[in-house]
Amino acid sequence: MSSCFKGGIDVSVFGESHGKAIGVVIGNLPAGEEIDTDKIIDFMQRRAPKKDGTSTTRNEKDIPEIMSGIYNGKTTGTPLCAMIFNFDQHSSDYGNISHIARPAHADFTGYLRYNGANDPGGGGHFSGRLTAPLCFAGAVCGQILEHRGITTGAHIERIKNICDERFDDVNVTAEQLNKVKKGFPVISCVVEEKMREVINSARNSLDSVGGIVECAAVGFPAGIGSPMMDGLENIISQLVFSIPAVKGIEFGNGFSCADIFGSENNDEFCIANGKIVTKTNNHGGILGGISSGMPIIFRTAFKPTPSISRPQKSVDFKAITETELVIKGRHDPCVVIRAVPCVEAAMNIALLSALVDNAKI
Amino acid sequence: MSSCFKGGIDVSVFGESHGKAIGVVIGNLPAGEEIDTDKIIDFMQRRAPKKDGTSTTRNEKDIPEIMSGIYNGKTTGTPLCAMIFNFDQHSSDYGNISHIARPAHADFTGYLRYNGANDPGGGGHFSGRLTAPLCFAGAVCGQILEHRGITTGAHIERIKNICDERFDDVNVTAEQLNKVKKGFPVISCVVEEKMREVINSARNSLDSVGGIVECAAVGFPAGIGSPMMDGLENIISQLVFSIPAVKGIEFGNGFSCADIFGSENNDEFCIANGKIVTKTNNHGGILGGISSGMPIIFRTAFKPTPSISRPQKSVDFKAITETELVIKGRHDPCVVIRAVPCVEAAMNIALLSALVDNAKI
Amino acid sequence: MSSCFKGGIDVSVFGESHGKAIGVVIGNLPAGEEIDTDKIIDFMQRRAPKKDGTSTTRNEKDIPEIMSGIYNGKTTGTPLCAMIFNFDQHSSDYGNISHIARPAHADFTGYLRYNGANDPGGGGHFSGRLTAPLCFAGAVCGQILEHRGITTGAHIERIKNICDERFDDVNVTAEQLNKVKKGFPVISCVVEEKMREVINSARNSLDSVGGIVECAAVGFPAGIGSPMMDGLENIISQLVFSIPAVKGIEFGNGFSCADIFGSENNDEFCIANGKIVTKTNNHGGILGGISSGMPIIFRTAFKPTPSISRPQKSVDFKAITETELVIKGRHDPCVVIRAVPCVEAAMNIALLSALVDNAKI
Amino acid sequence: MSSCFKGGIDVSVFGESHGKAIGVVIGNLPAGEEIDTDKIIDFMQRRAPKKDGTSTTRNEKDIPEIMSGIYNGKTTGTPLCAMIFNFDQHSSDYGNISHIARPAHADFTGYLRYNGANDPGGGGHFSGRLTAPLCFAGAVCGQILEHRGITTGAHIERIKNICDERFDDVNVTAEQLNKVKKGFPVISCVVEEKMREVINSARNSLDSVGGIVECAAVGFPAGIGSPMMDGLENIISQLVFSIPAVKGIEFGNGFSCADIFGSENNDEFCIANGKIVTKTNNHGGILGGISSGMPIIFRTAFKPTPSISRPQKSVDFKAITETELVIKGRHDPCVVIRAVPCVEAAMNIALLSALVDNAKI
Repeated sequence: MSSCFKGGIDVSVFGESHGKAIGVVIGNLPAGEEIDTDKIIDFMQRRAPKKDGTSTTRNEKDIPEIMSGIYNGKTTGTPLCAMIFNFDQHSSDYGNISHIARPAHADFTGYLRYNGANDPGGGGHFSGRLTAPLCFAGAVCGQILEHRGITTGAHIERIKNICDERFDDVNVTAEQLNKVKKGFPVISCVVEEKMREVINSARNSLDSVGGIVECAAVGFPAGIGSPMMDGLENIISQLVFSIPAVKGIEFGNGFSCADIFGSENNDEFCIANGKIVTKTNNHGGILGGISSGMPIIFRTAFKPTPSISRPQKSVDFKAITETELVIKGRHDPCVVIRAVPCVEAAMNIALLSALVDNAKI
Repeated sequence: MSSCFKGGIDVSVFGESHGKAIGVVIGNLPAGEEIDTDKIIDFMQRRAPKKDGTSTTRNEKDIPEIMSGIYNGKTTGTPLCAMIFNFDQHSSDYGNISHIARPAHADFTGYLRYNGANDPGGGGHFSGRLTAPLCFAGAVCGQILEHRGITTGAHIERIKNICDERFDDVNVTAEQLNKVKKGFPVISCVVEEKMREVINSARNSLDSVGGIVECAAVGFPAGIGSPMMDGLENIISQLVFSIPAVKGIEFGNGFSCADIFGSENNDEFCIANGKIVTKTNNHGGILGGISSGMPIIFRTAFKPTPSISRPQKSVDFKAITETELVIKGRHDPCVVIRAVPCVEAAMNIALLSALVDNAKI
Repeated sequence: MSSCFKGGIDVSVFGESHGKAIGVVIGNLPAGEEIDTDKIIDFMQRRAPKKDGTSTTRNEKDIPEIMSGIYNGKTTGTPLCAMIFNFDQHSSDYGNISHIARPAHADFTGYLRYNGANDPGGGGHFSGRLTAPLCFAGAVCGQILEHRGITTGAHIERIKNICDERFDDVNVTAEQLNKVKKGFPVISCVVEEKMREVINSARNSLDSVGGIVECAAVGFPAGIGSPMMDGLENIISQLVFSIPAVKGIEFGNGFSCADIFGSENNDEFCIANGKIVTKTNNHGGILGGISSGMPIIFRTAFKPTPSISRPQKSVDFKAITETELVIKGRHDPCVVIRAVPCVEAAMNIALLSALVDNAKI
Repeated sequence: MSSCFKGGIDVSVFGESHGKAIGVVIGNLPAGEEIDTDKIIDFMQRRAPKKDGTSTTRNEKDIPEIMSGIYNGKTTGTPLCAMIFNFDQHSSDYGNISHIARPAHADFTGYLRYNGANDPGGGGHFSGRLTAPLCFAGAVCGQILEHRGITTGAHIERIKNICDERFDDVNVTAEQLNKVKKGFPVISCVVEEKMREVINSARNSLDSVGGIVECAAVGFPAGIGSPMMDGLENIISQLVFSIPAVKGIEFGNGFSCADIFGSENNDEFCIANGKIVTKTNNHGGILGGISSGMPIIFRTAFKPTPSISRPQKSVDFKAITETELVIKGRHDPCVVIRAVPCVEAAMNIALLSALVDNAKI
């Protein structure tokens, strides 16, 4: 409940899109970890709207203010709270709230869930803006993982029919993962242009596109995780599905494992440089919910941006009447680019949480 | 932690494959719900090994004994514990424990996680046998959902290249969901024979196959769930990934949403019989983590059974040496058939938990 | 973990005494509840320092700013965050941190717990100031309880050897509970002067005194709570012990039950106005962890303020040397007066949480 | 919810007094800890009914059967389940359920809480019998604490007006704590006879008596615990109040701290044998929710056994009529003797849980 992940660490996200501020409280972080706030801002900038036509032209200055939990540049171990103030907060016009459900948005379901009392402005608590505090938390966790030699990274694996290369699931390096942390996060430089074309074309036809994000971690120690409900897949999934627009997740070879034989899918173990590894990595670095020491790999599917500028059929859920809807404003024709750091953030939170949860007495 | 799902209801699974017993404690069930134990046994029988060559020939009599929480045929509201005793418990031979990692199993990762102290016999706590208590819990939750007009069902959507029909994601009925609760759970009668051939062929070549299970719920009220970390997708995923061999999950049109435009993906709202519905159901019945009133639909991928009879290369993780492994015994050439009720159980637990979590004061 | 209460509602407190801000996130509040912010401020003012010599002369303007979760004057049902900014924030002087343990404070234990990384200024996260956000949360919960006819109240039952009357544990009314919500919260007007004298006398001799607070709730429905670990006593205790300086708690006749016979202690049931009640209320309104419908009553002991102006023997816990300590600054000679609304806040959070946890589907 | 403690370790208790079995699942125990089952049985025997007139003459053979989580004499790290079968289970006579509320019992409140569906036989899930699985869990945790040099112990501090000595709160030793683990757990041999007389006298007059239990831990490392809601007092209290009949708890000098000045109450720090200690221990080994390294000490009050053989006035809560009640059967005239190991068990669970929760990465 309460937009809160409760694991080895706790991450509680609050705020509404048009409210005074959005933010996050992170509990149970290890104490004494140096945190570089510039790097946090870099991380969050990867999520910020782009000036290149791929995203909304709104001006979101998502500069986090740390309220607690950092002292003298290090985590205190007590709850870390960061806020992002909404400077261009709209004056809420209570008399003119729309009750027309935007298709593929949570207007209707949120209205039912909260008896009509939730803040509808800009999607309220359901807004994609709430991924900004998630990224803050992910950036902090990522730095703590880096202190332990663990690196994560993510890239656009696909936008519509244009596919990037995939990470090498056996040999991917921290360097390669860091290299994709850029404005347009793809591995292959040739696909960027094609993807941009697809997005531009969608925008020009008042439409939107979705895609797939691939995320990986290297350096994560073997033996972390738990069987059944607290496996790494379980907690990564729980966090990834907190990003709006996610429709699916798969680990390792994922859905394609259904197409091959066991003899093809099984990753044989061997010894390399005195260390136990697998020759292939169809299992995506997780066996029985527990890390194997191989790169952890997953992919997650994002639906096309629900907000499109074409007229759509819908209903007024208060009046219970059919109507037509035209969504105004500036919207991302493709959320996938900005979703990449969000996926990485979810991975970071999950991995740090599992490490803390597995600490031994 | 502790193989426990903690939500509106709690489900805590315990036991090892070759231990005295496996079982489950279910906490916070609504009180006074009639429970039909025969129907529970029917549910669990769908998970039991088949006599038709598709699964292991071991004889597992998975008859649950209810220890607490049912009184006079009804739930008491206090914790419900059920046990399944392991009658053919192997005498553990402590001197002869294998430290050879079976590929795609949790032998190696479990050994690391528990410092070598976990019970390795038959996979111990990582065994697929632990889905029996999960099915028990799912069967109980399913009956309580039925009391509220909610029906769930699942079928094999695919085994290797053989595909069943899918549920009609808009019009699927409780009757159709109940109809697939049979020995070989498929919708189309023509695919059964083909799937059996694929499985037999795999078994004959000492191999195994995986597949995809589709699960749906109808009658679930709109407005149940929560944004971000406690959405229905989040908790369904957390529970589905507790089933060994699951590699991915997708809701609604899932990964294929990455291939289409927003204008195609958005489900327009309309009014039918005075009720707000969507014309299509790409969203799989969940928007913003909250039920829309449309059928809830997801699919989940199962890898091929890791245990195959062919020799495999592996390592002794205690000696840290390379070796070859031949797995003896009788194994399921395809776990997907028996996985179908497990997926349904995970759905049932998730939905009842969300209902309880969303009860209003 | 993480200074967070996790129940039917979640209350997560963050901040450090000399940090930028302190605050609270409240999750899972019922939606659509009208919240009167003036009444919240009144509640928090009862905790503010007094101008009458009974407390510190510091000037704390504890005006909460609501960041999220209230829309149009009502709870949205999504997380409610409130912040209290520290306007007179001291510039932290990193070079001059004391490592001398103030007796009865958490300086030494906090240092060990957080490897010396916690913010020590003014007690940091251990400061009594953190009860301000607790009071905010308690004020919000209290208003939601009032909407359901439930009233809570607390008073100083004792300061050193001066005792107030107790609440009538059978017949106490909402009116009586509201009447003690005043600057010096006692029932009997004659004890106020005597208590003030004791406090003044302690202050004049550079010393401090403790006391006992009694808290009650009326109108709380019978049948709410749970056996064993989630009984009302368990969750009230968990919350009350989050207030610094609390050393004990007792329900109903509490420790004095050890002195009487079962025949004296047992509260016989009878029927009054068609309703089942008990003739006496030694059980304090809770039986088996569940409310009986009688007033809920508990008392809690507060130790004397640890900060006294006399020289004290202590140690430097970094240098591991013995030393003497003189605490400067302005301190409350008695925290009990300001603790009264904190105890009430803990009760409010516990009761609303139990109501939400017990909502039926 | 669900009679489950959720901390660094999880302890979930299930069962009804007259059901098939009662038991416990313990999650997240450290792996590889040797467990001596004979010592577990010794621990539980301290809770068993005595043959000396101080307790019920019922014959409860509380021999636990371990179902999972122990392998080769060591904890596996996966959930540990133990069951206690109810061999003299009464055949439930459904037609003749009493709806007369026994004073000071949970019959009435439990009936309301569970809509009349809970198992009423022998108190059902509210029975004091449920402390048997709690003792099992406490015995296991206690052995794991002993592996780390931590010892706990408890004794009867008072029965009615007869008081035992108290533990020396500064110098108490493991040896002294172990010495009171005997049939009649008191420190001073002279009080035993007097306490027995008080109990016998109560039994002879068809009455009962309560008392106070004191519990201590030595060897617990300094720096374990957390501020606010997860302090050691909070979690110890949550567990202690899970024992039926507990009415209060106090740490260190507890309620008596209200009677003394700050200058008397503050425990000055000093250095002894190179280690930081306090000269006195009014704080009971906990400051700011965190252990100080001094002995942890608390006392807890038990009400007199509610079941007395005298006629009592009561109500039929189904018919809503007044009536008289005579409780038949054999009851403990004083539960305090048998409660001593239960209190120790609660302490053990709390301390191990805090250690696990505070493990560092």
